[in-house]
Amino acid sequence: MDAERRARVQAAMAREKLDLLVCRLPENVLLLSSYWPLNGLSFILVPADGEPVCIVPVTEESEAAAELEGSALKSFPSGVLSAGDPDAHLLRLLSDQAKRLKPRRVGFEAGFTSIAPAWNAAELLVAGRAGEDMLHCAFGGADFIDATGMLYALRARKTPAEAARLRTSNEIAGLGLAAFAEAVAPGARGVDLVAAVESAVLVKGTGHRGARRVRAFAQVAVGTAETALGYRPSEISTTRRLAPGEIALLELGVVVDGYWSDRTRPRVAGEATAEQHRLWGLVVQAQEAAIQRIRPGVAAAEVDKAARSILEDGGLGREFLHITGHGTGFRYHEPFPFVGPSAPGRLEEGMVLTVEPGIYADAFGGIRMEDDVLVGEAGAEVLGPFGKALT
Amino acid sequence: MDAERRARVQAAMAREKLDLLVCRLPENVLLLSSYWPLNGLSFILVPADGEPVCIVPVTEESEAAAELEGSALKSFPSGVLSAGDPDAHLLRLLSDQAKRLKPRRVGFEAGFTSIAPAWNAAELLVAGRAGEDMLHCAFGGADFIDATGMLYALRARKTPAEAARLRTSNEIAGLGLAAFAEAVAPGARGVDLVAAVESAVLVKGTGHRGARRVRAFAQVAVGTAETALGYRPSEISTTRRLAPGEIALLELGVVVDGYWSDRTRPRVAGEATAEQHRLWGLVVQAQEAAIQRIRPGVAAAEVDKAARSILEDGGLGREFLHITGHGTGFRYHEPFPFVGPSAPGRLEEGMVLTVEPGIYADAFGGIRMEDDVLVGEAGAEVLGPFGKALT
Repeated sequence: MDAERRARVQAAMAREKLDLLVCRLPENVLLLSSYWPLNGLSFILVPADGEPVCIVPVTEESEAAAELEGSALKSFPSGVLSAGDPDAHLLRLLSDQAKRLKPRRVGFEAGFTSIAPAWNAAELLVAGRAGEDMLHCAFGGADFIDATGMLYALRARKTPAEAARLRTSNEIAGLGLAAFAEAVAPGARGVDLVAAVESAVLVKGTGHRGARRVRAFAQVAVGTAETALGYRPSEISTTRRLAPGEIALLELGVVVDGYWSDRTRPRVAGEATAEQHRLWGLVVQAQEAAIQRIRPGVAAAEVDKAARSILEDGGLGREFLHITGHGTGFRYHEPFPFVGPSAPGRLEEGMVLTVEPGIYADAFGGIRMEDDVLVGEAGAEVLGPFGKALT
Repeated sequence: MDAERRARVQAAMAREKLDLLVCRLPENVLLLSSYWPLNGLSFILVPADGEPVCIVPVTEESEAAAELEGSALKSFPSGVLSAGDPDAHLLRLLSDQAKRLKPRRVGFEAGFTSIAPAWNAAELLVAGRAGEDMLHCAFGGADFIDATGMLYALRARKTPAEAARLRTSNEIAGLGLAAFAEAVAPGARGVDLVAAVESAVLVKGTGHRGARRVRAFAQVAVGTAETALGYRPSEISTTRRLAPGEIALLELGVVVDGYWSDRTRPRVAGEATAEQHRLWGLVVQAQEAAIQRIRPGVAAAEVDKAARSILEDGGLGREFLHITGHGTGFRYHEPFPFVGPSAPGRLEEGMVLTVEPGIYADAFGGIRMEDDVLVGEAGAEVLGPFGKALT
């Protein structure tokens, strides 16, 4: 991790009186080491002071060596027949660290219920009970403290180096938004649009500002009935074809070397009606009003209100079914900041959040605009800014 | 789930004296309900006898209703501002079932450390400690039994209906293998080949035999240095361009409505050398020898030996770094059957396994052939058979 991140983490550990922080979730290994694991078999150990230690399977050693920042690297045999039992090797390495550091209070990831995939998104390794057992075995006698809250609070405020990574991730997401704008046309199917977007992100994004590992997760709903469901956590991408004048709604998650962006654009195939332009215009206004309110110290509920009141004034309050935004970056959706009608928190410099007002109805479908915003000293910075057009 | 699956599950529960089986991992909800969750918020409850109950967020109700087999469906508010706290709704529904069923011994998924994503692969909901707490709260006083071993054993043997789904998944994977064969050429980059394969699977596979939700996870290594690392759990896909005569290695995971296939093909760009043909020919022979040995009752170690002895006889024993195969279907990689040199088990009718001998060396790179095979009464059935050619 960069020096600023390490200072913040070790300061938080001092407040929580933690002697050691041990993490295995890929998103937290990334946070604490700058290495985004290929799979989920890596650990990061951060002592109260001094240098962290990152433990990875030998099959990931070269990638870890290239990406690690400010941590020592240790590896264990894995991945081939001659490796024996990786868990036994891992336990030995963890036990070595326990002997060296002798921690009494160990923070760990007890409370994560939502997790980001590692680079290999097709299968996830989760520590679960076996992982806890291994920690107890290695650090026998230590008190184990749930560090979930501390980690989420730390993650909410990005360091300048992390904000730069999210700028890159959002620029690469923009390649997908551009491909979508180009491909939406009468006759296109949801699955065709998904393929166009995901291919563009991968093919054009890999290598952009040094990006090594890029993957897009696009969902495209087409037509009124499908887009009216676009508030759901998962949209449906089908073989239905866009008819002239119909709307398509792209929800796009992009991960670039572990750093996530979360964007949305609607687009009409062919000519849009005056009513479609009016509705879309209100959503754009709502988004821009929310972005205008963003600055350090502002109540999150005020940002929500800025967007919501424009839609309410336009008679669309009941169609705005969800919150205005959420944190993003180390995962697709992070819990802080939470930007909803009764959100208790305030925005802080360095936070990165989505701003995503949306309206949904059987009459017109679903229209949402979503960008990722960095809370800068002087106000909002839209990351990887991308044009707004309905057709 | 189909009637055969339900009979097997309830028989296993009787042997384990379980009054109830409660699962939340998407792969086990699929196993026990035929519904593949969009996210990870669904539960399936299977009583010792009688009809199972599937509990889903209301945002997934229409998909669940379309896919569920032999289960009652209940839903809870979720996904919109007015929904309140989904966990509170869920706890109430689980408590209702507890009152109705009064189970004393409840089986659950304590020991899963490797998990398959839900349809939304960009972010995973894992139950973790909070999930266990909720179960204890709902089923207070019951004994909780880790059913991981029972579930994995049940999953290893597919029912005829499940085998049919895996046939479809492998046919759709074949669309990706075909796209790869067509796209490998001098000048193509790893990321271009990944995009070609993933797009073909999505665009041509959706709708194939009624397939609704299709996603490919392709990894393509190009050239000697990259493919020589192809034994790793995650290959690297880069912007390196294939030179004439160089090898590309595709590792392809495809999920179709929750059912996984796992395939591999190598391909040379342009002309292959005689030595490349010889090495590849030995790998093909090894794969075919292993497939020939497959039938109910054969020792898994014998299947491994059939492949391994051919490569050993060809002087490539030390280059065959991994096992010959593993179970697949409800996840990319399933633990049973395990087909390695000292594997203790025997194959049983209905098992689905990969057969994937591979050789890796700095001198020639990586060459692996991988197909999915159903253990039929009379021997092996290669699922979604696809041609074998190096150029």
